[in-house]
Amino acid sequence: MALQSKIRPVELVGQTVFLIDQTLIPYEYKKIEIDNYKDIAAAIKDMLVRGAPAIGISGAHGVALAAKEFQNLEKKEFFANLKNACDYLISQRPTAVNLEWAVKKVYNYALSNEDKDVSEIVGKIFEFAKKLELEDIEINIKIGDNGAAIVPKGATILTHCNAGALATCGYGTALGVVRSAFEKDKTVQVFADETRPRQQGARLTTWELVEDGIPVTLITDGMSGYFMKKGMIDLVVVGADRIAANGDAANKIGTYNLALVAKAHNVPFYIAAPLSTIDTSIKTGDEIVIEERSHEEVTHINGKTVCAKGVKVINPGFDVTPNELIAGIITEKGILRPDYNESIKKVFEE
Amino acid sequence: MALQSKIRPVELVGQTVFLIDQTLIPYEYKKIEIDNYKDIAAAIKDMLVRGAPAIGISGAHGVALAAKEFQNLEKKEFFANLKNACDYLISQRPTAVNLEWAVKKVYNYALSNEDKDVSEIVGKIFEFAKKLELEDIEINIKIGDNGAAIVPKGATILTHCNAGALATCGYGTALGVVRSAFEKDKTVQVFADETRPRQQGARLTTWELVEDGIPVTLITDGMSGYFMKKGMIDLVVVGADRIAANGDAANKIGTYNLALVAKAHNVPFYIAAPLSTIDTSIKTGDEIVIEERSHEEVTHINGKTVCAKGVKVINPGFDVTPNELIAGIITEKGILRPDYNESIKKVFEE
Repeated sequence: MALQSKIRPVELVGQTVFLIDQTLIPYEYKKIEIDNYKDIAAAIKDMLVRGAPAIGISGAHGVALAAKEFQNLEKKEFFANLKNACDYLISQRPTAVNLEWAVKKVYNYALSNEDKDVSEIVGKIFEFAKKLELEDIEINIKIGDNGAAIVPKGATILTHCNAGALATCGYGTALGVVRSAFEKDKTVQVFADETRPRQQGARLTTWELVEDGIPVTLITDGMSGYFMKKGMIDLVVVGADRIAANGDAANKIGTYNLALVAKAHNVPFYIAAPLSTIDTSIKTGDEIVIEERSHEEVTHINGKTVCAKGVKVINPGFDVTPNELIAGIITEKGILRPDYNESIKKVFEE
Repeated sequence: MALQSKIRPVELVGQTVFLIDQTLIPYEYKKIEIDNYKDIAAAIKDMLVRGAPAIGISGAHGVALAAKEFQNLEKKEFFANLKNACDYLISQRPTAVNLEWAVKKVYNYALSNEDKDVSEIVGKIFEFAKKLELEDIEINIKIGDNGAAIVPKGATILTHCNAGALATCGYGTALGVVRSAFEKDKTVQVFADETRPRQQGARLTTWELVEDGIPVTLITDGMSGYFMKKGMIDLVVVGADRIAANGDAANKIGTYNLALVAKAHNVPFYIAAPLSTIDTSIKTGDEIVIEERSHEEVTHINGKTVCAKGVKVINPGFDVTPNELIAGIITEKGILRPDYNESIKKVFEE
């Protein structure tokens, strides 16, 4: 039984979706109500909701809201419109496989109920989306408990970005491991990479760990090697946005640097992610599309510029950590180990 | 003949010191006038002036201002007070060896003129401090020209923090190499690490390169590996605050991570620094004192907090890059290569 966090970033209540507006954290805690899929799409694009699993479930809920919007159409038109809405939702964040996974899962579930009346289909879609939401939390608790087994007593865990309760429907993946480990051993602590440009580590990870009373030290992205060299970091655990069939993992920009630095110090580097993050349709990380995000994320902080006018910017949102730098992929079905081509294949055959 | 930059961050004019207030860059360009050594000390501590060579010469000018302040004392008291002022100046930034080097150089010069009248000594101190300032620029141009020889045609040079004109009396060390290379080859360009926490890369490096018309792309500190993996970075050149007798180099926090990432991609990693940065009294980087700076540098940007209340912070200002990661140390007397114990010993014997 794992420690529960009260943080629920994506929650379907009846036919309304409630999101924590994560662009306001840590300054303000505000839940917003959404009742149509276009607002869900906007919330995904503008990162009111972020984190691969949370984006996925938001997408699922978006499909439900779209179904409600089209509930008075003829069945054929209903499905055509629903399909378009699904494509629109998926297009908002190309890197996170979970979005495509969840949206397609709901759409296929709708298709499998094609014989029913549209109104009944709509009702079933809402039930199914809610089920995915609750399953996400269950999956995270399993990831957390599986990961806690490899956290040494009194460990300091370094993490990058936010793969926490805020990145999921609750509990978290990388921070799920932290929560499960902390429940067993109150001397576990976290070092959080700030994670420029969007500072999800500073803004979100520190906020949710402070909320849950787990000790957290904020460092900037360039400091990890300094602390590893001093022997102050026992392991690294991060999330992932998409994992290839060979274990190459796309995650927030800066993850690859961190993995290289961990390798140089023999600090084990783990990915914590649900199996839905694994995209077996792609062989290696080279095939993962990396989204280029707004230059303002780099040039501005809190609305104020931090550099000279006239500077050029490139802002890749993600990077790919090659499988040889990854000690293990912590999933709801246990920890996958190299050779990942084999262990990933095996886990999907079970 | 190298391209001159108009940027002069530390300039002695008569008996007044003019500093560019670098805490205002890139928002405002403002020169401040200082006529007493305590204000120089404060400017060093509060980083109105920063960068190892610029701190050093500011310290030298501080000694001159102190000498002026004590010019009506008896000679014995004059020297006692001058010694105290020197110690006070040196204590402002423990990591930068150039500060101690320059302050002691001026003090020893004063001592060597002990037989003269105090008023004459004071005059000679001002002349000597000005000479050090102009020599600093000459040294940087030599560093730049020596370094330009190893910059491939059309190279993209990645740098961290600001080892530019703003870090020196003009021209720069790492950016001196860039300036000399760009003068020969207009297709050379720079990628600048933002350099959290204080963002000297974003605030200062982009500003001074845009001012001088040299193409510069701003990236965050976690992106270097992403671009190196794509083959977009040809070499890394950074400055240093203190170099041990074995070549281990202390520089702005984040440099060590960058050196590890460069090594993993076989991208050559160079230090550009005057010989005054080398402290042969320390054998290895382990002996270098790393200053812990204010937590607000991490938790606040432009006066606004970027993290949750209650988070812990550790803020080491520097890290040490071990000699095995350094392809060469570019100095005014040529490029030192491994074994650094030998090449450093030899260059000081010349």
